[in-house]
Formats: sequence, C-alpha cells, structure tokens
Amino acid sequence: MQRLIIQVNCPDQPGIVARVAGLISELGGNILGEESHREPAPAKFFMRLDIDVSKVAAVDTTLKPRLAELAQQLDGQAEYWDAAERQRVAILVTSEESCAVELLSRQRAGRLHCEIPLVIGSRLDLAEVVAAYKVPFQHVAATDQAAHEQEVLQQLEKAQIDLVVLARYMRILSPQFIARYPGRIINIHHSFLPAFKGAKPYQQAWERGVKVIGATAHYATAELDDGPIIAQDVVAVDHWDSPAALTEKGRSVEQRVLAAAVTAHLEHRIMVHGRRTVVFR
Amino acid sequence: MQRLIIQVNCPDQPGIVARVAGLISELGGNILGEESHREPAPAKFFMRLDIDVSKVAAVDTTLKPRLAELAQQLDGQAEYWDAAERQRVAILVTSEESCAVELLSRQRAGRLHCEIPLVIGSRLDLAEVVAAYKVPFQHVAATDQAAHEQEVLQQLEKAQIDLVVLARYMRILSPQFIARYPGRIINIHHSFLPAFKGAKPYQQAWERGVKVIGATAHYATAELDDGPIIAQDVVAVDHWDSPAALTEKGRSVEQRVLAAAVTAHLEHRIMVHGRRTVVFR
Amino acid sequence: MQRLIIQVNCPDQPGIVARVAGLISELGGNILGEESHREPAPAKFFMRLDIDVSKVAAVDTTLKPRLAELAQQLDGQAEYWDAAERQRVAILVTSEESCAVELLSRQRAGRLHCEIPLVIGSRLDLAEVVAAYKVPFQHVAATDQAAHEQEVLQQLEKAQIDLVVLARYMRILSPQFIARYPGRIINIHHSFLPAFKGAKPYQQAWERGVKVIGATAHYATAELDDGPIIAQDVVAVDHWDSPAALTEKGRSVEQRVLAAAVTAHLEHRIMVHGRRTVVFR
Amino acid sequence: MQRLIIQVNCPDQPGIVARVAGLISELGGNILGEESHREPAPAKFFMRLDIDVSKVAAVDTTLKPRLAELAQQLDGQAEYWDAAERQRVAILVTSEESCAVELLSRQRAGRLHCEIPLVIGSRLDLAEVVAAYKVPFQHVAATDQAAHEQEVLQQLEKAQIDLVVLARYMRILSPQFIARYPGRIINIHHSFLPAFKGAKPYQQAWERGVKVIGATAHYATAELDDGPIIAQDVVAVDHWDSPAALTEKGRSVEQRVLAAAVTAHLEHRIMVHGRRTVVFR
Repeated sequence: MQRLIIQVNCPDQPGIVARVAGLISELGGNILGEESHREPAPAKFFMRLDIDVSKVAAVDTTLKPRLAELAQQLDGQAEYWDAAERQRVAILVTSEESCAVELLSRQRAGRLHCEIPLVIGSRLDLAEVVAAYKVPFQHVAATDQAAHEQEVLQQLEKAQIDLVVLARYMRILSPQFIARYPGRIINIHHSFLPAFKGAKPYQQAWERGVKVIGATAHYATAELDDGPIIAQDVVAVDHWDSPAALTEKGRSVEQRVLAAAVTAHLEHRIMVHGRRTVVFR
Repeated sequence: MQRLIIQVNCPDQPGIVARVAGLISELGGNILGEESHREPAPAKFFMRLDIDVSKVAAVDTTLKPRLAELAQQLDGQAEYWDAAERQRVAILVTSEESCAVELLSRQRAGRLHCEIPLVIGSRLDLAEVVAAYKVPFQHVAATDQAAHEQEVLQQLEKAQIDLVVLARYMRILSPQFIARYPGRIINIHHSFLPAFKGAKPYQQAWERGVKVIGATAHYATAELDDGPIIAQDVVAVDHWDSPAALTEKGRSVEQRVLAAAVTAHLEHRIMVHGRRTVVFR
Repeated sequence: MQRLIIQVNCPDQPGIVARVAGLISELGGNILGEESHREPAPAKFFMRLDIDVSKVAAVDTTLKPRLAELAQQLDGQAEYWDAAERQRVAILVTSEESCAVELLSRQRAGRLHCEIPLVIGSRLDLAEVVAAYKVPFQHVAATDQAAHEQEVLQQLEKAQIDLVVLARYMRILSPQFIARYPGRIINIHHSFLPAFKGAKPYQQAWERGVKVIGATAHYATAELDDGPIIAQDVVAVDHWDSPAALTEKGRSVEQRVLAAAVTAHLEHRIMVHGRRTVVFR
Repeated sequence: MQRLIIQVNCPDQPGIVARVAGLISELGGNILGEESHREPAPAKFFMRLDIDVSKVAAVDTTLKPRLAELAQQLDGQAEYWDAAERQRVAILVTSEESCAVELLSRQRAGRLHCEIPLVIGSRLDLAEVVAAYKVPFQHVAATDQAAHEQEVLQQLEKAQIDLVVLARYMRILSPQFIARYPGRIINIHHSFLPAFKGAKPYQQAWERGVKVIGATAHYATAELDDGPIIAQDVVAVDHWDSPAALTEKGRSVEQRVLAAAVTAHLEHRIMVHGRRTVVFR
C-alpha cells in the first residue's frame, strides 16, 4: 500500500465531496479515510483524505496536477504528502526536561512518525539523556537574544528541520525568528490559554485560586501565547496544592498535550483557519 | 432548507464515497455534513450524511429509490429520515428521578428534538413534577412482571412510542419485551460497564475501592447490562466517599451520559455494529 | 446525635490541633470528622470540625464561649453552626433555566440541605415549573437597574434569605447590592475564569478556538467575575462545536459546578482567604 | 527542620485526635499537616501526621515509645518514618518502556523521593536508556517461572529493595514471590479495574466497545489484578480508536497513574484497609 494524505480547503459550495472523491476514484485511488468540516461566516470547507494510491497510474503526473486543477476550480488549495515520509523535528528546551524526554521516548519507541536530528538546550546535563536516544545535542549558550536566535537558526537550517518544537523553551522568540517557520513552530504553554499568558502561569493560577489547571499546545505566532490552539487538557487542583504542586501536576498535562499536538501535525491532521484550528482525527 | 439524514452501511470497497456523494450531487442535493467510519475484520463501511434536499426534484421518487438501489449494489443498506421529524419518546422511571427530570427539562427548553408523550413511573409523587412539563404521567402499579410488562407495552403502543428510555428504571425487562423495540430501548446503568453489572453498582464500587466511578448508556438487549454502549463518562472519587456519596456524585454523570445518548439517537448519529457502536458527531 | 460544625482560622502556630481537639474532648464532644489546611506567606491555619455534641453538658454556655475564648487566644476566629439547621436560599434566574431546575430538583429529592422559599425570575413561563417544586415564584419586571435591585432586595429580605444563588442571572448587580450579602452570593459564570470574563463567554471561547470549555462558581464581589472561586469544571470541545454547541455542552458543566458550590456552602465547608477559597471535603 | 511522618490506625473512639495531637504537642513536636479518615462497619480510624520534631528532646527515646504506647491504649498501631529518608525502588519491565522511563525521568529530576538502584528488564535494548539515568540494568533471561523469580528475588535482595514497581511487567508473579514483599509491590494494570482483568485489556475494551479506557495502579496480592487500588485515571475514546490507538492513548494514563501511586507510597500517604486504600493528600 502507498498512502497519500491530501488536505483541501475552499469556500463551501455544493458538490465538493462528489468532485474530490470522484476524481480520486476515477484515477484509481482508494479512500481509506476522509473527514471534512465546515466553518461558518463566510462558509469555508476543509477536508483531509487518506488514500491508497498504489493502483494510481502516475501519481505525480496525473493525480497531483488534476487535484491542483480541481482546487483552483473550487477557488481553494490542495496539499498532499506521502504518508511514509518522516519530517525532521528539532526540540528546543531550557530547564524543564519532561516534555523533551516524552517526545524522545515516543520517537524511540516508534510512536512518533518523524526523525529527531536535533535537540537544542541550555542545560549541559541534558546531553547525556539525549545521547541515550542517539540524538545530537547542541548547547546554545549565547545570552544576547539576537546572537542566540542566529545560532539556533543556523543549527535548524543545517539539520534541515521541518518542525520546531518548543518543549518548555523559556525564551521569547522574535517575530523575525517565527516568520522563518510559519505554521511550523509548536509551543507548549503551561496554562489553559487564554488564562495566564506570559511568565509564571502556575504562580498566577495559585494566586487566583483556580480549581483546574491546564496546558496549551499552539502554533507560535508573532504575538506571545496567542497563536492558534492545537490541543489543551486540564487537571483538577484544590487549595491544598501549592504553586510547586501545581507545577508538578501540570507536567503530566504538558507532556501529553504537547505530544498530541506534535503527533497531529506530523500526521497532517491540522488545518489552520485564522485563530482557530481544525484538528482531524 | 429541507434536511434529510442518511445512513449507509456496506462492506468496505473502493469508490463508495464517490458513488454516494456523486448520486446526491447529480440529483441536486447539497451535503451539509458527512462522516464515515471503517470497522476492521471484515472491513465494513459506515456513513452518515446530512443533506439539503430543497433543490432535489422529487425526493421520494428519485433520491430515495436511487439510494436504495445504490445500497443494494454495494451489498449494504441505506436509511433516511426527515431531519425535521420529531420522534416520540417514553420515559420509564422507578424511584430515582434526576435522569427523568433532566430529559424533561431539556425537551421543554427545546434542547431535545422529540416529543415526550408519556412518562411511566412507579412513584405517585413524580406526577406533579411531570405535569409541570405538560407530559402525561402513568402510574403502573402491577408487581407481577408479566402483568407489569403487559401494561407498559399497552401504554407504549397507545402513545405510538418510537424510543423507550429507561431513566433509572430498576426493573429487569424480559427478552420478549425488549424484542418489541429492537435498537430502540436506551438504558442508563449507574456504573462504568462492564464493571459492576447488576444490582447496587455504587455499593460494589465502594467495596472494591475504585478511585473513579462512571455511568453507561447502552441499548438494552436480551442479556442484562450487555448491550452496545452508546456513551460513558466518569468522575473521580476517593476513600472519603461513602456509598451514599458515590450515589450522589454519580447522579450528575448519569444525567449527562443518558441525555447525550438520547440526543445522539434522536439525531440519527448512532450506527450499531455487533457489540460496538459508531456514534457520529 | 446532635452535630455541630465548627470553623476555626488563625495565624499558624504550634499546638492548635491539640488545643482545639483537647477542648472538645474535655467538654464531652466527639469529633466525627476534621480537616485542616495551612496557607503560606504569612502562614495561616484553617480548620473545620464536625462534632457530636449530644454528650456535651451545655453547648451554648460551655462549648461555644470556651471556643470563642480559645480562638481569641490564638488570635483568630471561630464560627459554629447546628448541622441540622437549614439555610434559606433564593434562586435568581433570567432566561436560561437549567441551573435553577437542577437546584430545585436536588432540593426536592432531599439532596440539598436547605429551604428554597423564593425564585426570582424574568421569564413568566418559568412559574409553572417552579410551582411544581412548591416554591413561590416572583416575577421582577423592572428594567431600571436601581428599581430592579430595590425590588429584589425587598423580596430577599421578606423571605429572610441566607444565601442568594445567581443561577444564570444575566444582570450585573451593583456593589451596593452585593455588599448587602457579603460572602453569601454565589454566581455561576459560564467560562473557565479568569478566561472569558464578561458577556458571551461561549462566543469568545469559540472565536479563540479553545479545545476545552468550563464553568466557574464563585462568590460575587464588587468586581465582576473576580470573586473567590469555589468550584470549576470543564468539558472537551473541538472545531466541530459551534458557539451553540458550546452553549449546550456547557450547560451540564454549569449545573454540576453550581450545585457543588451551593452544597459546599450549605455544609459550611468553605473558608475564604483573600481571592482563594479553602473548600473542605 | 526535621520531619517525621506518622501513621496511626485504630478502632474509632472518642478523643483520638486530642490524645495524639496532645502527645505530640506535649513533647515539643509541631504538626505541619494532619489528615484523618473514618471507615465504617466496624468504624475504624486512620490518621497521617507530618510533624516537625526538631524541637523534640529525644525522638527515639521519648516520642516513638510514647506513640507506640498510645497506639496500644487505642487498640491500634502507629508507624513512623523519617521524611528525609529515601526508599530503594526497583523497576521491573518487559517490553513496554514508557512507564519505566517516566519513573526514571522523574527520579532524575528530583521529583520522586527515592533511590532507584535497579531496573530489571527482559529487553536488552533498554539498557542504554537506563544507563543514561545512571541506574544499573539487569537483564533476566530465564523463561522458566521458578528460575526467573529466583533470579529476580536475588537481585532485589542484593540491592536491598524496599519497593518493587511492576512498570508494565507482563509476567504473572507467584503468590510466594508476592508474599516476600507484602504491601510493597505496586503494579500498573492497563485497564480500569475491575473491568478487563488479565491479558490484552485494550483488545478486550475495543471488543466491548467502551467509550472510556483507564489504568489502575494497585498493590499486588496473591490474586491477579485484585489487590487494593491506589490510583486510577481514564481517557475518553470512541469508535474511531483501533486497539492500537487505545494502546497508544492508554500509555499516558498508565504513566501518570503509576507515578502518582509510587509517589503516594514513597510519601507514606497510603493506608490499606482490606481491599480499600486510604490515600491521603
């Protein structure tokens, strides 16, 4: 089996499903799974298909151009990816390592469909753990922001990175940096956004006396903690929990929320619509 | 807009989506939403469509027979319902009223798309609450099972009931009774099935010392507490919670799980596959 | 058995538990349950005791003055309530009735330890449902805020209300009104505070594209949606959920969160510390 | 500060709190935290205290014997632990490594108050990951059960293990083995017990069509998957999730449930009562 993942988006209009599915069927593709969604005002259509193209005569010269042509007729876009292809992911981490270890551990166990050719960290003692996962570790020491970002960007480019994961990376990246990887930087924020943006969210949560804390994985955009949300989850807390206890309880939530978001991205299940995301199954 | 809900199931095979969507498109229908699912071994395909048929020339003489014909070609079945049509629901309840009140309250507020022409109860004092919702209340007193079931069946038939909801109805119904409403009796069991089948599940849960309790809405089948599960949810508990506290905490879970299952049934979002259910969004 | 509920708070210091428990023991009281909590910076101690005073010689002239004296020595406060006593609760509601019905239904079933002598509503059609619960319904029509509050206050005073529950009451109350019932007005806000304060939180949540929505029960204070939080809970949502679907999913959360907060208040399990609450089991 | 953790259990009776707290106060101890619980029928009392004994004249010769004496008078038991002392934990794992890595990662980060001097595994490739955490890895190859258990027991004894953690250890241990570490073997079972005991619980869950899956951490007893439950948690699933997807979703739940149970044990917060556990905060 040779699987192709297709994403289509266009203004909502009658006949889209029939035309897309009809084209795939006509060219010998077999739909293994399809999901669609309509966003309102103005109505916009989103679709993801997982198709078997092993019986398609010439994928590159028939299916792909025909799909592009159809998308154009629908006044929209089509994108496609070979499902077997592994993206190259870089993990950036400062002091809190639990999210980074979770991703490394999943990748090692074959649970994340990607390569991880680079971990960039600010703590030298993380090197030995990263090494156990056979991933190169780069220590970036520069404290000046511009110099730091320059160094990180060079590492990312050298490693031909497709996706940057900020796995508890406690430095603010400049809009210029973020613009280099549009829709390809995922950050984990340790609060239930939009509550408690910015620094020390667990301390903020404790002071406000909330009874639930959460974590949010989102695409990084120029505005801090304001990008499209991919995944969120929460855990119940109470008066008993100190700020340190909130931090401890939150780590499990951060781990699973970030891993879920990265998994969805790697499987091409996310489509962004303004500040909202469509995350297919 | 005139909406038709369609369910199709058949052995999985190439081209189903193209053919179904193509037929609808050809006849002038507009797909407002579609979802599909494939179950393995042997591969079976399930699909639900929500379509606008206001521009279809003659729904009854074109779309419906053509769909039936297509389903036959696919070696499967097609069913359809006018989305505007309200089913007639009977609620059966013994002593614990919170689930029944939740359903009545939602129906009154326009949140359940159905009529409720009948509540059958064993407690007379429920009559005044039911009356406030302008629903006829029938007190069924017979304690002999056969006589009791006979009386209930007569009431259900007289009220032309489409769906029977056992909203904490603490009597076991005979396989003969259940066979009269196949796939049309929804029961709420106050445990996380398959744990704690049968009587006093909260007491059983307390004795076993579980840290989470739940509720399960399922279609009633001949075998007790063993029918296809539609919805489940849970709530955390601990050593502090007595059996009475588990009962209290469980009520909220029962209410929302039962209401979710009834809503899904009324919107034709459920397709049964053996002991499993496909519950579309 | 005759149960007394005691709350003690004071600066944290050695020997508090021994002194409080020693006094109760000395006078013949039997501790059925006790919980304590320490808040940091500056360290403050909170305690709730549930004691059987049926063998205490003269509760009013021995236990109560001795407790007050001890609290004074500890530089703190002691409060006590006869556990059998039922508070008088008023429910205020505008258009959305599900929270009000949940409270009425629980009270009728003996699940809320209180009287409900008054429901104030802005919708006349709620009267018949409230009547089924044998609770007087007052329709307050005035649209001018000052006149409206005046009328509501008169009703509350006439009914000798101890606790005011804003059960989806979509009017903003003046600081003057709130000052009349300090720590005795519980509001349900239909978001996970501090996210989405103010109007239309479900619409705000949809626009932000969050993947979890919630509800918050809190004591009303002069500042809108900013009082001490008593209870919060959440439910997962996704791109599929329209603002209307968020509203529907949120109702169950609102119901159980508000009921939990009211129950905790009625059982004297809440102690307020600035913007934080200690909510004992 | 020098902290002592005390557990007391005895038949419920008047005056326990006063006597225990009074003794501690008399000897100069300062209660930093206390929790108690009463189990019914017959009424039994459980208490855990966290006390500062830095001002107690002679802990070993005054506080400890006086406590033992008091416990005897109450017809119960008292136990105490130096809070600073680290237990020695062994992790046993077969093929699925995520739980083991989670525990190692937490211990490395100072989040688990213990030593981990031994990991016993059946997969050689786990050695390199374990090595990164500076923990000795023992590969136990014997396939004969008696020989295998003999080898494991020798390793545990040699490493002076206090607590054995079965972190997805897919071999059944004999009652004789379990009897060697009574109340000191914690197992993670990958279902919401008592549902789906035994082998392949995710496959069982898929076949039954449940809408929620869970994990259970419990003390191992002679009877398989039947020991006192320490912690449980769950995650929602639906028809879309294959058995492999359930396995994947379950891993996060297993990780956090097992880590929570081990943490509670290491902090002496668990008291066992028949098949039930009291797990203090």
